[in-house]
Amino acid sequence: MRRSRRRVRAVRCLRDLGEFELIARIARAAGRPPPRSGVILGIGDDAALLRPRAGEDVAISADTYVENVHFRWRSDSPRSVGRRALVANLSDLAAMGARPLGFTLALAAPAALPVRRADALVAGMLHEARAHGCPLVGGNVTRARETHLAITAIGCVVRGRALRRGTARPGDRLLVTGTLGGAALERARAERAGGRVRHVATPRLSAGACLARIPAVSACIDISDGFDADLRQLLGEQLHAVVDERRLPQAAGFERACARLGLDARRLVRAGGEDYELLFTLRPSGPRTALLARRLGLRLTEVGRVVRGAPTGRTAGGWRHF
Amino acid sequence: MRRSRRRVRAVRCLRDLGEFELIARIARAAGRPPPRSGVILGIGDDAALLRPRAGEDVAISADTYVENVHFRWRSDSPRSVGRRALVANLSDLAAMGARPLGFTLALAAPAALPVRRADALVAGMLHEARAHGCPLVGGNVTRARETHLAITAIGCVVRGRALRRGTARPGDRLLVTGTLGGAALERARAERAGGRVRHVATPRLSAGACLARIPAVSACIDISDGFDADLRQLLGEQLHAVVDERRLPQAAGFERACARLGLDARRLVRAGGEDYELLFTLRPSGPRTALLARRLGLRLTEVGRVVRGAPTGRTAGGWRHF
Repeated sequence: MRRSRRRVRAVRCLRDLGEFELIARIARAAGRPPPRSGVILGIGDDAALLRPRAGEDVAISADTYVENVHFRWRSDSPRSVGRRALVANLSDLAAMGARPLGFTLALAAPAALPVRRADALVAGMLHEARAHGCPLVGGNVTRARETHLAITAIGCVVRGRALRRGTARPGDRLLVTGTLGGAALERARAERAGGRVRHVATPRLSAGACLARIPAVSACIDISDGFDADLRQLLGEQLHAVVDERRLPQAAGFERACARLGLDARRLVRAGGEDYELLFTLRPSGPRTALLARRLGLRLTEVGRVVRGAPTGRTAGGWRHF
Repeated sequence: MRRSRRRVRAVRCLRDLGEFELIARIARAAGRPPPRSGVILGIGDDAALLRPRAGEDVAISADTYVENVHFRWRSDSPRSVGRRALVANLSDLAAMGARPLGFTLALAAPAALPVRRADALVAGMLHEARAHGCPLVGGNVTRARETHLAITAIGCVVRGRALRRGTARPGDRLLVTGTLGGAALERARAERAGGRVRHVATPRLSAGACLARIPAVSACIDISDGFDADLRQLLGEQLHAVVDERRLPQAAGFERACARLGLDARRLVRAGGEDYELLFTLRPSGPRTALLARRLGLRLTEVGRVVRGAPTGRTAGGWRHF
C-alpha cells in the first residue's frame, strides 16, 4: 500500500514523466486504430501512413489551441480543452465535405504541467476522435512555457467534390445549420458563475459529407470565428450577402438567457465563435430548405442571399488574432 | 519621402499587421504551388487538398520548433530557424522513403514579434520548401507568449514500400549516410564565437526514396536526436547493435576542430542532434556498401551489426524533452 502511494506521488508532472513515457502514455490511451480505418501505420514511427480510397483527394487542416489565448486552466476543464481543440479541426474537415482519416497532435507543455491535466486533455481529444472516427496517428511532444495543442487533421474527399470558399455566385441562397451564439453564451455563463466551460460543439461531419454530394451547394465554411467574420471568408471580396438578421437561428430561450446575463444576444449570434455550424451557399435551383434539412438531419435556416459587390466593412466583431 | 518612412515605421510587429494581413503576407511569399505538384488547393480555405498518385499511401509527420527550447533569437538567425524547422519534418519523410507533397505551418508568436523576424522565419522555411518540392499548403497563425513553429509534412510513398522502425532482424548490417556531429559542432562554434547558428543540414529525401525501392533495406530512421538515441528508436527493445565506434563517420578535420574548442568529439558524434543523416539496416544479402553509396550519391558507412537482446541502457546523452 505504501509502495503504491509513493509511486502515485512520484509521478506528478510532465518533468517526472519524461518525453518517452509521455508519448507512450498517449499511445496507450489512443490504443490501436480501428480496423478498416485507413490507418496503415500509427503512432511510433517517423511518420504515420494513411490510405485514402481510390479517387479521393486528401484534405489537410491545421489549427492550434493556445493557453491564455484559446483557453484558460482557470475557466476551462482540461477535458473540454482537448475536445474543443480536436473539434475545431474536425469542423474544418466537415466544411470541406471530407471524411476524417486521422490526426496528429503536436503537444507543447510546461514541464510543470500536472500529469492528470495532460491525461485529461488527451482523454478529451480521444473522446472526440472516437466519436468521429478520426484516430490519433502521430505527433510530437515538447516542453514550452505555455500549453499549445497544434493539431493537424487529415481527411479524404472524392475528387472534385470538396466544398470550397469563394465559389458562391450572386443569387445563391445562404443557409446555416443548427443555431448560433450558443457556445459564446455558455462561455459567458460559466465565466459569470466562476465555473468551468464544459460546452463542446459537434463538428458537422456527416452534414458536410452530405452537402459535398449535392452539386447545387456552391460554397461552404464552418463558423469558428463568428457568423459575420466567417461569412466574409466564405464570400470573399467581390460578393456580400443580404442577411435577414431576424432569421439568424437561435436556440429556444436564448434571448432570455442573454438578457438575464446582461449580454447582447444579437452580438453573440453574429460574432460568437466556436459554434461550428456550417454556413453554405446553394444555387437558387437547389433543393428546398425543408427537404435539405431532412437529408442533413439538422435544423437548417435560409438566412439571406448572395449579391454582387464588396461588403461594407462593418463586422460585429469576430475573433481576430494579434 | 516622409510618407513612406511613416509607413515603414507603422508596420513593425505582428500586432501592427493583424492576423489576416499576416496570413496574406505568408501566402504571398509562398506563391502558387508549382504545376503538377499534387496540390489541388493551397492556402486560404478550411483545408488544403492534395492528390497522391494511384497506389500511394500518405505519410504524415508533425514536429514543433519552440523558442528557448529548439532555438534562441540570441544565437539563431530567424532564417535558419525557419529552414531547420522544415528540414526536421522533411527528414522524417526521408526516413520513411516518402516524397514530399506539401506542409502546413501552425505559427504561434508574440504580438510583439518584429515583422522582419517573422518574414525571415517564413523565408527560411520557403527556401527549403522550394529546394525540396514541398510547398506550404495551409496552416494557421495565433498569438502566444513564445514563438512556436508547428509543422506537419505530408508525403507519399508507394504502398508497402515505406521504411519503418522496429523491422530490423539480428544479423542485419547497420549503415549511416554522411557524417555525424557536424551540426552539434557548428552550434558549439557559433555559441563560443557569440555568432548565430547558420548551419542547416540537408534532409536525405532522394536517398530515402532510393532506399525505399531496395527490398533488402529492413528499417530506417533519421538522426535528429543523436546516433545513440535514434539507434534505440530504430531497433526497439528486443534488439541492439554492436557498433564499431571508430567507424562512426566524421567530417575531415572534425576531431581537430573539437579539440580546439575543448569539445568531446566522441560525444558529439554519438549524441549530437540535427545531423539528419539516415540510419538504416540492411539484410546481410543486400548490396555492398560501396555500390549502395554510389546509388545514393552519398558517403555511406557500415558501422555495425544488429544482434538479439535488449540494449544495455547506457546512452551518450541524446536529446530528451521534459
